[in-house]
Amino acid sequence: MNRLIKALHSPLTTAFLATQPLYLSAPDAVTLVRRLGFQKCIAGMAQNIRADFLRWPDFDKSARVANHSQGGVIELMPISDDTTYSFKYVNGHPQNTAIGLPTVMAFGVLADVATGLPTLVSELTLTTALRTAATSALAAQTLARPNSRVMALIGNGAQSEFQALAFQHLLGIDTLRLFDIDPLATAKLVANLSGRGLKLQVCTSTAEAVQGADIVTTVTADKACATIVTADLLAPGMHINAVGGDCPGKTELAADVLDKAKVFVEFTPQTRIEGDIQQMPADFAVTELWEVLSGTRAGRDHDDQITVFDSVGFALEDFAALRFMHEAALVHGVGERLALIPQMADPKNLFGTLQASARRIEPALNGVSCT
Amino acid sequence: MNRLIKALHSPLTTAFLATQPLYLSAPDAVTLVRRLGFQKCIAGMAQNIRADFLRWPDFDKSARVANHSQGGVIELMPISDDTTYSFKYVNGHPQNTAIGLPTVMAFGVLADVATGLPTLVSELTLTTALRTAATSALAAQTLARPNSRVMALIGNGAQSEFQALAFQHLLGIDTLRLFDIDPLATAKLVANLSGRGLKLQVCTSTAEAVQGADIVTTVTADKACATIVTADLLAPGMHINAVGGDCPGKTELAADVLDKAKVFVEFTPQTRIEGDIQQMPADFAVTELWEVLSGTRAGRDHDDQITVFDSVGFALEDFAALRFMHEAALVHGVGERLALIPQMADPKNLFGTLQASARRIEPALNGVSCT
Repeated sequence: MNRLIKALHSPLTTAFLATQPLYLSAPDAVTLVRRLGFQKCIAGMAQNIRADFLRWPDFDKSARVANHSQGGVIELMPISDDTTYSFKYVNGHPQNTAIGLPTVMAFGVLADVATGLPTLVSELTLTTALRTAATSALAAQTLARPNSRVMALIGNGAQSEFQALAFQHLLGIDTLRLFDIDPLATAKLVANLSGRGLKLQVCTSTAEAVQGADIVTTVTADKACATIVTADLLAPGMHINAVGGDCPGKTELAADVLDKAKVFVEFTPQTRIEGDIQQMPADFAVTELWEVLSGTRAGRDHDDQITVFDSVGFALEDFAALRFMHEAALVHGVGERLALIPQMADPKNLFGTLQASARRIEPALNGVSCT
Repeated sequence: MNRLIKALHSPLTTAFLATQPLYLSAPDAVTLVRRLGFQKCIAGMAQNIRADFLRWPDFDKSARVANHSQGGVIELMPISDDTTYSFKYVNGHPQNTAIGLPTVMAFGVLADVATGLPTLVSELTLTTALRTAATSALAAQTLARPNSRVMALIGNGAQSEFQALAFQHLLGIDTLRLFDIDPLATAKLVANLSGRGLKLQVCTSTAEAVQGADIVTTVTADKACATIVTADLLAPGMHINAVGGDCPGKTELAADVLDKAKVFVEFTPQTRIEGDIQQMPADFAVTELWEVLSGTRAGRDHDDQITVFDSVGFALEDFAALRFMHEAALVHGVGERLALIPQMADPKNLFGTLQASARRIEPALNGVSCT
């Protein structure tokens, strides 16, 4: 700490830090969301995500890069337009909760395309939960029947409250039918969401929870080819928001659910690998969400149609969420600068950073400055 | 700063920060290299890189993911073994120096494969220069003639002193023949390296610099299909350490140089896209460095053979370098913890971080804690 404080009090290093990326820690993100309010955050992110989906062709897109291991997966999700680059680091380790760690942890970066300079390093664990819920609600605004009020929420873990509140605020959902194989997870959700104007109905099975639901949201964590929802549970007109099936070998919907539904995805090449449609033939028909948002292709065709949003999470959503958090942080003065990039009077003189700190700066600033 | 200091003084958040990644800033890396000494750093990194190349089959390897733009490229370079994951963010923008920024800026991360928890966030601008030089020297130890003493150094920018000193310390190079199209770059190199026991001979052209050289190192930055070295400049037995040609459309060697040489690469699928061999047919014969290091395939076949190390920089080298810096930082107590991952009493209760900070922690700690 001592060194950083000294650095901040030196005019030299204050200028240095001003060219460095803003850093938003996990506590900073909490501060920011609390200051803005949950509803404003989720609405702002949904607005950013919609705006970025509407300029889909502007982006250099690729399926994420995944390193799979026995216990989980670590992924990198890069994307860029002409001016801004972003990537997210995110893991998925379903067994983590047993040792007190989150299943999903994430952080991300914004950078300037013209120079490659990183402008933001941010936590993305909390922010991912927000952007995933915002994306789900954005899709449902387009795909679910307009008068949807009842949502089944299958899987009551870390993401579930975010989904619940996003659907309450952005769609007018007023009733949640809850199920999780872990009753404590459901109890936690009920404790967190009571007093917020939602009717909370605790159910004893997926089948029970799905009864009478307009929308079915699945956010389960198990890394397995599960069949949380089967075709016999479907009712005409249901919208299924399938969030948890998001990597090879991790699905939530039975194949016959997909066969009976019109299926919508984020980025087809990625979803064919990671989504519930990994079970289906390579030419299984899907519609991309941006096409529906832009009016290029139809969404729901009629009230009785079953629609599925086979969500896996796409880099564009993180791009939009990171921009939202960056702007909000600058407005509210939250976060600090990281001294991540060497500062040099002559940018060709990287080696000089080793010498200058020895000869000129080290005694005064204890090794912080590297002009 | 205030918030972070308060956080550090709270027992609650001290425990919180202990489970967070170590952060090594650019100034921290300078401190660490100066404390260890340049020679020990370069030797230690070379040792780590050799050790990791020798267990090549243990790694989950992929070509890096590149986002190209008009002015440059931004890349992500992930790799993992059974226990440790790493990635590097790195840009390449040749025009950056005109606005006072480095051509190449980088940072990287180590993470635990079993949980996905990041353990280190580190600058990699300085560290990349060190690891690139260490890799070049490691390759030359195997491929150059053992009695090599004279090295031509074409391109005297940010990477050049690192290459020079790595070859001095690890190969016994005693004479450098220098050329850069920017005479100020050469003057900077001479100023930085005088008094270190190297004979420095400033040349007026690549052709002049190459005369009498045992090893030719090219570290030019221009993003173009350049022909820095042509076949007429070659002498029998030369080793060419081609470092600057490292992305599509960026080469340094004429095709006839490659035709006359035995060519060695890091990771063939990546080098075919990015290396000087991008000019050659897809079946152009190459040998991977790890095969030579492990004795699986021959390196230099005879004293008169021309050898080329077509280096583009592979994720494994960053993996090795990050591990080196991480261990050194822990030993020397350099760096700080980043509060990057939310800490929760119940890891399924991510939403609770928003509530707890409101109800219990916010007033005392100004929003820092999120248990």
